[in-house]
Amino acid sequence: MRVPGASARPYGERSPFEKQTRVVAATSSTTPLQDLQGIITPSALHFERHHNGVPAIDPSRHRLLIHGLVDRPMIFTIEELMRFPSASRFAFIECSGNSRDGWGEVQDSTVQALHGLTSTSEWNGLKLSTLLEAAHVRRDATWMLAEGGDAAALARSVPLIDEVLNEAMVCYAQNGELLRPEQGYPLRLLLPGFEGNINVKWLRRLKLGSAPFMTRWETSKYTDLMPDGKAYQFSLVMEAKSVITRPSGQQQLRPGFHEIQGLAWSGRGRITTVEVSVDTGRTWQSALLQEPILPKCHTRFRLPWTWDGQETVIESRCTDETGYQQPTREALINVRGIHSSYHYNGIQSWKIGRDGFVRNVYV
Amino acid sequence: MRVPGASARPYGERSPFEKQTRVVAATSSTTPLQDLQGIITPSALHFERHHNGVPAIDPSRHRLLIHGLVDRPMIFTIEELMRFPSASRFAFIECSGNSRDGWGEVQDSTVQALHGLTSTSEWNGLKLSTLLEAAHVRRDATWMLAEGGDAAALARSVPLIDEVLNEAMVCYAQNGELLRPEQGYPLRLLLPGFEGNINVKWLRRLKLGSAPFMTRWETSKYTDLMPDGKAYQFSLVMEAKSVITRPSGQQQLRPGFHEIQGLAWSGRGRITTVEVSVDTGRTWQSALLQEPILPKCHTRFRLPWTWDGQETVIESRCTDETGYQQPTREALINVRGIHSSYHYNGIQSWKIGRDGFVRNVYV
Repeated sequence: MRVPGASARPYGERSPFEKQTRVVAATSSTTPLQDLQGIITPSALHFERHHNGVPAIDPSRHRLLIHGLVDRPMIFTIEELMRFPSASRFAFIECSGNSRDGWGEVQDSTVQALHGLTSTSEWNGLKLSTLLEAAHVRRDATWMLAEGGDAAALARSVPLIDEVLNEAMVCYAQNGELLRPEQGYPLRLLLPGFEGNINVKWLRRLKLGSAPFMTRWETSKYTDLMPDGKAYQFSLVMEAKSVITRPSGQQQLRPGFHEIQGLAWSGRGRITTVEVSVDTGRTWQSALLQEPILPKCHTRFRLPWTWDGQETVIESRCTDETGYQQPTREALINVRGIHSSYHYNGIQSWKIGRDGFVRNVYV
Repeated sequence: MRVPGASARPYGERSPFEKQTRVVAATSSTTPLQDLQGIITPSALHFERHHNGVPAIDPSRHRLLIHGLVDRPMIFTIEELMRFPSASRFAFIECSGNSRDGWGEVQDSTVQALHGLTSTSEWNGLKLSTLLEAAHVRRDATWMLAEGGDAAALARSVPLIDEVLNEAMVCYAQNGELLRPEQGYPLRLLLPGFEGNINVKWLRRLKLGSAPFMTRWETSKYTDLMPDGKAYQFSLVMEAKSVITRPSGQQQLRPGFHEIQGLAWSGRGRITTVEVSVDTGRTWQSALLQEPILPKCHTRFRLPWTWDGQETVIESRCTDETGYQQPTREALINVRGIHSSYHYNGIQSWKIGRDGFVRNVYV
């Protein structure tokens, strides 16, 4: 207080004392769920997943082509897209491969490493339906190819069901400012509730058709291998999931009061209930859900708890507005087997040892 | 698409093509309202106002003292505060001096320069009431001094009315990560709906008392000088205001379709209606309010409009859930005179010339 402080700055940065980061792998990075507060993920910490790197796109040279089963094929600049009636919504995006270690068993991991491929933002842009109307989409168009302008040219087939026509957006902004490069700058598709990769980033092309386009991203990848050897395609919705983020893997507790906190979300709509067990699944209590509880968004839950220093397992399970309840790992594997890489949403169990150390366990 | 893109990064940055900034004055900086999307203000673009600079605080050395009319005076570290039951909420913060140029008349300004001392964030921390209970606040405590740890030692008297006891928070985080330095890192008071400066940043001390403390910030500054020469003290609530952000001052339009967009907010609760006039106040239409409409938060409104190339004035006026309607500039000045510096919330008029140039005007 004895010296004048720093001057105002054009663009703020966080305190040099703060060091939370995404954990970076070759083609992805994970959100530090254990450090997050509230429901918004800061754009700088939103998870990444890309298949051939983040392209450096000059927005003045970027174009979006709409063609195929439309009466009026069109090419738009970003500036033109920004002149359409706009829309905003809060939504989570979760990689379909999030939590994939749950199919197997891994030792001593963190909530960030296990579940950090999910983040929530306010997304801004225009409704997909606005563009489809502008291009005079034909009645027989039931599927749409969405292609990205990255070096992988990731492309996915989008079914034009009512949910998509009502909710899908073409986004140019996130959390108040224009998209971050790793989130698709200058343009991405948003399909709230659907698996991450179909929210195509660096969006350059929409082709309307009457059948799925069967890209390699929906044959060699992003299908769910079932116990009988068949694979499900187009399992797009991210079902309800929850996870306790504090306390969580590799943290260490002292006996006494702790507020258990975590996140719950569902690709089907709003979270209605999160129950927490602090006694290895014997009894369950309703957690407090922090307002606002928004559809297809992270919802933060809290439960006050006093740890007595004895060994125990803590777990959360959520229910969404369709009545669907997050399954146990056992129930999930009974149906799905263990050879899938995607759409794992079983209950996460954290074991707290007498030394206070928290470990992921498979009960 | 012909070369692999960049690798994943621990902490993201915006595209080098994006240059929106706060506009920096000696002790403040303004949010670029004309560039914002949705209702969240990115933390890097949240307005600043400080009276002797932004202190560089090591959070491990920071303490919060609670004393005065309490049975148990206490000193907390940040780590200790983070172990209490937590809370989150979305709220705008607006400097009481925002829009102050409206008391006079200025030429050819921007919405950022005129109204950019307001921003909305998700704030995270704990309820003030939780701390007051921990310190065993006495029944006769009706006011509370909140003091900042900056070189100005800004201090304000907070009335402990029900609204404060129900809603006030001590915050350590904003938009998912810990506070930014210019927003009070590592600790600030949040009084949703109250003028910005009483949301004391770099919070170091809370003293409970039975009368206001009459600091210099509530005598020499932050009072409202009325036409009869008396000054109102403790006019804390920011009344309902709205402003069209696009099109706005110094922008230039072409004839044709435009989506009028703007922001509305009220320190009394939710915005219920925003009306827009595109014909110099003769007729008014209801604008669409973007969901979610949250209490004491920016609410984005939109109205499709086709500009015919003729000279006109466009304006917005909002109503909040108490029924209060944003006043005309004339009505406001009739009551308040023109010698106040604070709490200006009159309707903003933008004149569009035949050349498409947008100017702030006083009608």
